[in-house]
Amino acid sequence: MYKLYYAPGTCALASYIALEEVGADYKAERLDFKANQQNSPDYLAINPKGRVPALVTEQGVLTETPAILAFIAQTFPERKLAPFGDAFKLAEVQAFNSYLCSTVHVAHAHKMRGARWATEETSFADMKRMVPRSVGACFALIERDLLKGPWVMGETYTICDPYLFTIAQWLEGDSVDASTLPKVMDHRKRMMERPAVRKVMAEEKA
Amino acid sequence: MYKLYYAPGTCALASYIALEEVGADYKAERLDFKANQQNSPDYLAINPKGRVPALVTEQGVLTETPAILAFIAQTFPERKLAPFGDAFKLAEVQAFNSYLCSTVHVAHAHKMRGARWATEETSFADMKRMVPRSVGACFALIERDLLKGPWVMGETYTICDPYLFTIAQWLEGDSVDASTLPKVMDHRKRMMERPAVRKVMAEEKA
Repeated sequence: MYKLYYAPGTCALASYIALEEVGADYKAERLDFKANQQNSPDYLAINPKGRVPALVTEQGVLTETPAILAFIAQTFPERKLAPFGDAFKLAEVQAFNSYLCSTVHVAHAHKMRGARWATEETSFADMKRMVPRSVGACFALIERDLLKGPWVMGETYTICDPYLFTIAQWLEGDSVDASTLPKVMDHRKRMMERPAVRKVMAEEKA
Repeated sequence: MYKLYYAPGTCALASYIALEEVGADYKAERLDFKANQQNSPDYLAINPKGRVPALVTEQGVLTETPAILAFIAQTFPERKLAPFGDAFKLAEVQAFNSYLCSTVHVAHAHKMRGARWATEETSFADMKRMVPRSVGACFALIERDLLKGPWVMGETYTICDPYLFTIAQWLEGDSVDASTLPKVMDHRKRMMERPAVRKVMAEEKA
């Protein structure tokens, strides 16, 4: 059985959905970020990064959303969540998820996590002001160039979809004008129609 | 034939080394960042992100270092640069590279690329002051927990190695105290002994 460490409202949602989509035998273990549980000695012994997600497997612990998603896809090949037989198509999937983690999520993180990269309150305020524009520019690129539709990679649902859905949850909070993103918003709506997504969203809110 | 768009001193070095390591038929195409060539209409037509690396293949263009590295490894399986047959081990490789792109490279980027996330000179100065500490903390984690030695994943050289080597090029410029990182520095030294690395480093400097 897998154990997924997560916190509501974080990027761990993508891995949570993927586990549910493939029907994995797993337990979701919630961390209390308000109590800083991600930096407790017990959790740091599992994931020294002090972040979520972390997936405990029989072979060891995995971190980083793109890696966990690829692991789930490869472990449940019959669900065809990633094109492992085609190096180019698999790299397209990895490139999309890599862009989400290294650029889109990072732009968003400047709203609340400025202390990772600066120390002054004036800098944090400056970073916060930029978020609608920087996250907005990322999503404009996704809307125009990356999201093939109806799913991220076209006709086939892949591990890109729960990850985009997860990051797109933050659009309103980041004050990005969603009316300029019809494809992204349509994707988010169709994701919400999937039973796995509905179940996980309800559990996160419980 | 592949075409790799790169600029000296950037993370594109990792893909450049990997292409050389596998003996790919490729051409390295240098962009002039001082002339802002990465944002020229010609290049944006190839990579709308306006960044390097971009790898032009017969099937299309790939971006994002972790994806390009995985593509090279999968396309030249006889070189065994990634454990594609083992979902857990492959995810460990992807997790390491994902950490480099989403956390380590991002920490470094706050030295020179603050305008991605803020607008004020005081914020840029604040970000710059933090870089030795934030990049230093990332490398302390790599030294202590992630770099198995002698290569990143242990006895086998993988696509994690050129990527770590690339990011570790920036340590002195980021004012990180390299004396606290003996394993990382030993790794960097052994990388420099590889013919492929020497060749690419010479070409970047030419």
